[in-house]
Amino acid sequence: VLPPAPDADDIEAATARIAAACVVTPLLQSAELNARVGGRVLLKAEGLQRTGSFKLRGAYNRLAQLTAAQRDAGVVAYSSGNHAQAVACAAALVGTTAVIVMPADAPVRKIARTRAYGADVVLYDRTREDRAAIAAGLAAARGLTLVPPFEDRDVIAGQGTLAREIARQARQAASAPDALLVCCSGGGLVAGCAIAMQALLPDCAVYAVEPAGFDDTARSLAAGQRLSNAADARSICDALLVTTPGALTFAINRDRLAGALVVTDTQVEAAMRFAFADLGLVVEPGGAVALAAVLTGSFDARGRTVAVTLTGRNVDAALFSRVLAEG
Amino acid sequence: VLPPAPDADDIEAATARIAAACVVTPLLQSAELNARVGGRVLLKAEGLQRTGSFKLRGAYNRLAQLTAAQRDAGVVAYSSGNHAQAVACAAALVGTTAVIVMPADAPVRKIARTRAYGADVVLYDRTREDRAAIAAGLAAARGLTLVPPFEDRDVIAGQGTLAREIARQARQAASAPDALLVCCSGGGLVAGCAIAMQALLPDCAVYAVEPAGFDDTARSLAAGQRLSNAADARSICDALLVTTPGALTFAINRDRLAGALVVTDTQVEAAMRFAFADLGLVVEPGGAVALAAVLTGSFDARGRTVAVTLTGRNVDAALFSRVLAEG
Repeated sequence: VLPPAPDADDIEAATARIAAACVVTPLLQSAELNARVGGRVLLKAEGLQRTGSFKLRGAYNRLAQLTAAQRDAGVVAYSSGNHAQAVACAAALVGTTAVIVMPADAPVRKIARTRAYGADVVLYDRTREDRAAIAAGLAAARGLTLVPPFEDRDVIAGQGTLAREIARQARQAASAPDALLVCCSGGGLVAGCAIAMQALLPDCAVYAVEPAGFDDTARSLAAGQRLSNAADARSICDALLVTTPGALTFAINRDRLAGALVVTDTQVEAAMRFAFADLGLVVEPGGAVALAAVLTGSFDARGRTVAVTLTGRNVDAALFSRVLAEG
Repeated sequence: VLPPAPDADDIEAATARIAAACVVTPLLQSAELNARVGGRVLLKAEGLQRTGSFKLRGAYNRLAQLTAAQRDAGVVAYSSGNHAQAVACAAALVGTTAVIVMPADAPVRKIARTRAYGADVVLYDRTREDRAAIAAGLAAARGLTLVPPFEDRDVIAGQGTLAREIARQARQAASAPDALLVCCSGGGLVAGCAIAMQALLPDCAVYAVEPAGFDDTARSLAAGQRLSNAADARSICDALLVTTPGALTFAINRDRLAGALVVTDTQVEAAMRFAFADLGLVVEPGGAVALAAVLTGSFDARGRTVAVTLTGRNVDAALFSRVLAEG
């Protein structure tokens, strides 16, 4: 039995709750980008968020609601990147401790940053061990509260605050998006954004955008049931490698999304270069898929106003330089 | 005889004038940066400006005031970078033509971008020819209006809109900066910013920040007269290589600045890496000097609120990658 999905009131409450921790990231426009696509693109620069990605919204919304006993015991999460940093940061902010289960081969910088927020990082072997089982074991043994990356009502509500901000910022700019493009892996961000947007701007069509090979949500929407990606699939989008839509997130997305778009790694890299040279923004691969969908015309923006989420900045210098060099 | 300096009313008028062309760039905060320096840093992310730098503010404010006859004849400017793109863009927006005198060895991308705005780019040999003389010759021969990079009342007023925005955005964030740090080459930006800030927040101390070897404003302020840099000085800050303060800008800055700070190329590169990894912003070398002054403690931010201008994003991919690799 699925837990109930969050509603617009939950996202309102989350907005008030996260204000203590998160910044309102800007909604930007580029005259050159608008001219290039023949429409109006509203860029939500969420890479400017604390911890460098949208993940703090959901993590903080969850951790801010811990009971005193749960806070005393601490939390546990598994992630190779953005959710790890977000839970570690949120834990420090609400005054609890965090254990983060990370693969031993995760980028050194991401491990270091997660530790810098004060978290206890437990490394595991990606090829031989199951991170969810390790986390569940830690939760049971130590009485920790597990903070899931997307399959959680409070996490989804927190991520939905992103679209609520977009809707309000667009209104302040006397603009109303016809469509919203959101990166998608487990589906928590796009699910929360769809709930928020349909409450505020019901005519705005919300799309998931996925990397090629990790188009499980696109295929699941088409099939009407949850499908998984091939085990040997690879993508530069390290933040978007979940293999199957969540049960709760898929139930929300099946009812609410206008569709799902798919972009290739080559298109993602071109979008990262565009963000560097034409926007002045550092965007990690997984954060660039929605921009890629607009730049390639996979989403046709001609004559339309489209909001695009740029969801994270946490990319290693070596990878970023390689992407720039291939332009 | 110097022309009169612009006043706060000129900057108000410029603000209304440039609204058609420029975006209001965000004033950002980073909890990590605040913790690191022990104060509050307000980051003006002006690299998100159209054309990628603050230069459009001054160029557009000047070009929007051309007479019909001047518009019919066209404008001329000399610049190796940001002012070139700004004048080219402003010319297209107000419906005039621009000739831009650029060194033949300027970055290919900057020449291409200037041409992309529709400007006629005239290349010259940096080692044998005088760009100001070439521009003056073109102005005389073709009846063009010269758009100076800083030594101009309207250009200075346009650049001053940056500080006006900072003051208003800080107020909206319930914050008032004790100090404002502004990059400085010819001195037009910091002059305009000092005029604007002293009208709105007279207790805010305004500082110029210069690269080592190009500290002509710092030395000129100390000497009470305009001094030049050594002819063989070199810096990574390609946007800040003017050799002598302007007469008008120095007259303003001498009366209004609290001081001038100097940072090394090594410190600038560290600031660029910080902006990449911790802020998610692409900042060119010349745009990073003020941040470098805060990060190094050259400006002591402990217990203070300091506004820092990040003034441009126009850096070549190869240079940016080299800077990242050296971190």
